[in-house]
Amino acid sequence: MKQLRLFSEIIVNHRLFQPFIIALIIVNSVIVGMESYRGLYEAYGDWFIRIDTIILTIFTIEILLKLLASRPMYHFFKDGWNVFDFLIVAASFIFMGSPFVTVLRILRVLRVFRTISMIPSLRKMVNALILTLPSLGTIMILLGIMFYVFSVMGTFLFRDVAPEYFGNIQLTMLTLFQIITLESWASNIMRPVLAELWWSWIYFIAFVLSGTFVVLNLFVGVIVNNFEKIEKMENMDEENPDELEDEVKLLRKEIRELKEIMREK
Amino acid sequence: MKQLRLFSEIIVNHRLFQPFIIALIIVNSVIVGMESYRGLYEAYGDWFIRIDTIILTIFTIEILLKLLASRPMYHFFKDGWNVFDFLIVAASFIFMGSPFVTVLRILRVLRVFRTISMIPSLRKMVNALILTLPSLGTIMILLGIMFYVFSVMGTFLFRDVAPEYFGNIQLTMLTLFQIITLESWASNIMRPVLAELWWSWIYFIAFVLSGTFVVLNLFVGVIVNNFEKIEKMENMDEENPDELEDEVKLLRKEIRELKEIMREK
Amino acid sequence: MKQLRLFSEIIVNHRLFQPFIIALIIVNSVIVGMESYRGLYEAYGDWFIRIDTIILTIFTIEILLKLLASRPMYHFFKDGWNVFDFLIVAASFIFMGSPFVTVLRILRVLRVFRTISMIPSLRKMVNALILTLPSLGTIMILLGIMFYVFSVMGTFLFRDVAPEYFGNIQLTMLTLFQIITLESWASNIMRPVLAELWWSWIYFIAFVLSGTFVVLNLFVGVIVNNFEKIEKMENMDEENPDELEDEVKLLRKEIRELKEIMREK
Amino acid sequence: MKQLRLFSEIIVNHRLFQPFIIALIIVNSVIVGMESYRGLYEAYGDWFIRIDTIILTIFTIEILLKLLASRPMYHFFKDGWNVFDFLIVAASFIFMGSPFVTVLRILRVLRVFRTISMIPSLRKMVNALILTLPSLGTIMILLGIMFYVFSVMGTFLFRDVAPEYFGNIQLTMLTLFQIITLESWASNIMRPVLAELWWSWIYFIAFVLSGTFVVLNLFVGVIVNNFEKIEKMENMDEENPDELEDEVKLLRKEIRELKEIMREK
Repeated sequence: MKQLRLFSEIIVNHRLFQPFIIALIIVNSVIVGMESYRGLYEAYGDWFIRIDTIILTIFTIEILLKLLASRPMYHFFKDGWNVFDFLIVAASFIFMGSPFVTVLRILRVLRVFRTISMIPSLRKMVNALILTLPSLGTIMILLGIMFYVFSVMGTFLFRDVAPEYFGNIQLTMLTLFQIITLESWASNIMRPVLAELWWSWIYFIAFVLSGTFVVLNLFVGVIVNNFEKIEKMENMDEENPDELEDEVKLLRKEIRELKEIMREK
Repeated sequence: MKQLRLFSEIIVNHRLFQPFIIALIIVNSVIVGMESYRGLYEAYGDWFIRIDTIILTIFTIEILLKLLASRPMYHFFKDGWNVFDFLIVAASFIFMGSPFVTVLRILRVLRVFRTISMIPSLRKMVNALILTLPSLGTIMILLGIMFYVFSVMGTFLFRDVAPEYFGNIQLTMLTLFQIITLESWASNIMRPVLAELWWSWIYFIAFVLSGTFVVLNLFVGVIVNNFEKIEKMENMDEENPDELEDEVKLLRKEIRELKEIMREK
Repeated sequence: MKQLRLFSEIIVNHRLFQPFIIALIIVNSVIVGMESYRGLYEAYGDWFIRIDTIILTIFTIEILLKLLASRPMYHFFKDGWNVFDFLIVAASFIFMGSPFVTVLRILRVLRVFRTISMIPSLRKMVNALILTLPSLGTIMILLGIMFYVFSVMGTFLFRDVAPEYFGNIQLTMLTLFQIITLESWASNIMRPVLAELWWSWIYFIAFVLSGTFVVLNLFVGVIVNNFEKIEKMENMDEENPDELEDEVKLLRKEIRELKEIMREK
Repeated sequence: MKQLRLFSEIIVNHRLFQPFIIALIIVNSVIVGMESYRGLYEAYGDWFIRIDTIILTIFTIEILLKLLASRPMYHFFKDGWNVFDFLIVAASFIFMGSPFVTVLRILRVLRVFRTISMIPSLRKMVNALILTLPSLGTIMILLGIMFYVFSVMGTFLFRDVAPEYFGNIQLTMLTLFQIITLESWASNIMRPVLAELWWSWIYFIAFVLSGTFVVLNLFVGVIVNNFEKIEKMENMDEENPDELEDEVKLLRKEIRELKEIMREK
């Protein structure tokens, strides 16, 4: 067992291990892309399946090796990206042979995201992007409450007039999401309702104004977050103010020495 | 009376009081959401009404207790959120038994907003959002004047060509709001008018350009506001510049002492 | 003549002069708004014309008084807002009695903009907004060149396929403006062209990407401008760094005195 | 040969050389714009071709002169703008007399971009805009991966339901680009698909949310880039902090002198 772990450690840390896996992910990406063309799939379908089996086998070995190489073993699962890799491969086995071909295909497509988990700079960037989300928590709860209130209200008010948009809460929520992206909010959604209920503009204008205002503040939150991160990094670089303080402290020390000289006299 | 106020103070400040009310608001939210499904409402309509009566009763007691607990009593109304809570509950009584079922339902939905008034962090955020509005005052007046001028002008110019969009000032204002969100402004609004009046593009381009420019500056105002708030908070934290100044002042003091020593000699 | 100038100066500087004119502008705004309702105009058309004649007379007197009150007289035209006021009133006289009723009406509507020229805070804000424009000069020239190149190219390429969008340079420019606002750019403009010329997506994607990129940089320019203005204003307020410098200079002075004392001994 | 180089140097550096070329580019722009009008082209087509031949000849001479004037000669190609000028003119010769009239016309239109290469301030700005692109590299790779995964997935899932939008990977990519600009994403693309496959909203909402989030961060990157550039330029201007440091250093020097005086006594 110990020898196996040492062996896997050597392989995992080999300088060609990562490039090889990245190359494999790219091959997988190209294959899955080619599969989406009907003509190609009908002609070479068997080959696609064979190559996929080989790739899946190598990915399984890769994850097993990585699992063995990490000590203690459960440390492997501490990194979200490893968990992602593991789930993608494990799910491929679970659905193997199942009639849900689409699910298997989607899993194969999702493996393309493994590029991110393999290239450190992409990994870092996605981690950074995900880290900005919690700081937007409060404003997202606020947006959620707003969405819920407006969707229940919209359902009560317009379900008879525009059932395709406001038929039930789920539909209304989707419609509100569409409205907040400002897509056809007036031409397709408000104007037909307005033709029936003249006061309905209040609902729409209120939602567009408050919605875009809250979303704007959400965006500002993301921008502020980014600037703060950059400023922190910059402040670590520049040491000027501290230099100045050191200078002043040295000055004080010298004056103290001067005093000593005076007293001694 | 005094005993009653003490009693209500104890209840209001009890550590389970707030969670209990929040739980009730959530129950109210779920109920009002379920009500929006026709099938559910027809089957359990009576239950919804009963639960609503209970919730309304508890909310009434809650507000009475809070009113009693604040001294002097009118202090309760100094907080806008308390006024909001009070109005929502009071209005439920006013419209009770009235034929406007929709109004009552909307009031019940609006109670969901009480979550904001109960959770301090949300309350703080909404207060902050609302506080940014007055600083945008001047630019909003400007936008208002722009809207008025363009809507009167648009009504004069296009009411015969596109009465569904420019039939009267109110309609034109709504259309201008749609144009400023850039929704179907060209395909649905400008192009049909342009087919009749070739020079109409001047009106639309002028409004889109000036409108987006002013709105952009309004957004920038919000962003600047946010940054300033954050900077102020940061400036309170960092005391480096003042430290340096203190250091220099200490230096001066020591030099003065040195002088004294000199003179004494 | 001199007496007349003194007299006009007294009136212009009277504390009720400006509020009176603003009130008149508001009356004018309301009248012009009411006029846009067909029913009202047909019933009270004569009254609207009479009130308008009175307002125009007062505005004329106002401008004459202001002209007389400024010394030397041509100083009056140094302020762009005065020129605006003058032109609006002068044009009303030029078109008076002409058959172009619409032009006269538009002039009457444009008088609403005089609110901006009368309220100092609005005037200041509009001046500030206009002042940001020249600093965006270079990027606007760039945008202009881009628009010209893409519109000539688009006319050559698509005039036979979609003459309603790309029939001639002017039309193509309007279409490109619509595309840059992202309004129906794909559904109405690109997709029909794409159905005929498969390679046309290159043109559209290239324009959308480069256009939004340049416009984004234009917006960033506006934002940066605003921040700089605010920072400048803030830097004028805070005098800390200079205070610190003064402190250090005082220190040096004292040390020099100390030296003097030493030497004298 | 040497004389020829000297001669070309004198011409290239003549103060009227650049204005003359710019004037020629403008003439070329106007001509190519006029050509796009069918009537004008049919009437004066020969003249347009003649003028174009003259302009092309002068541009060729211009580039030859510039090539001769730069020492060593290959330095000319070090500047991307010179390469651009060279390619535009060279391509005109390659396609001369070929049946691809459209290609020749596009080349003639692209010459308008030479204005940028001739006016230094525009050249600087475009260079600056292009320089911000590499710093956005990582996020653009991320966006690319996202586009690829969603386009393969979308093709698998929706090619039977909406072949006009999701028929193959290329089409899906174009559709995803349309969705990311939020143009008709719901009314034209999601809603018809949703009518067939109720769960399809997950795909669309996921793409809209993650897409706009990543694009927002891309935009923030551009903004941050701009601010940093400006800050760097500002920091070069203001020398206050260094002044203060110099002041303190002078102070220390004086104290040292003071010590010397003390010791000497």
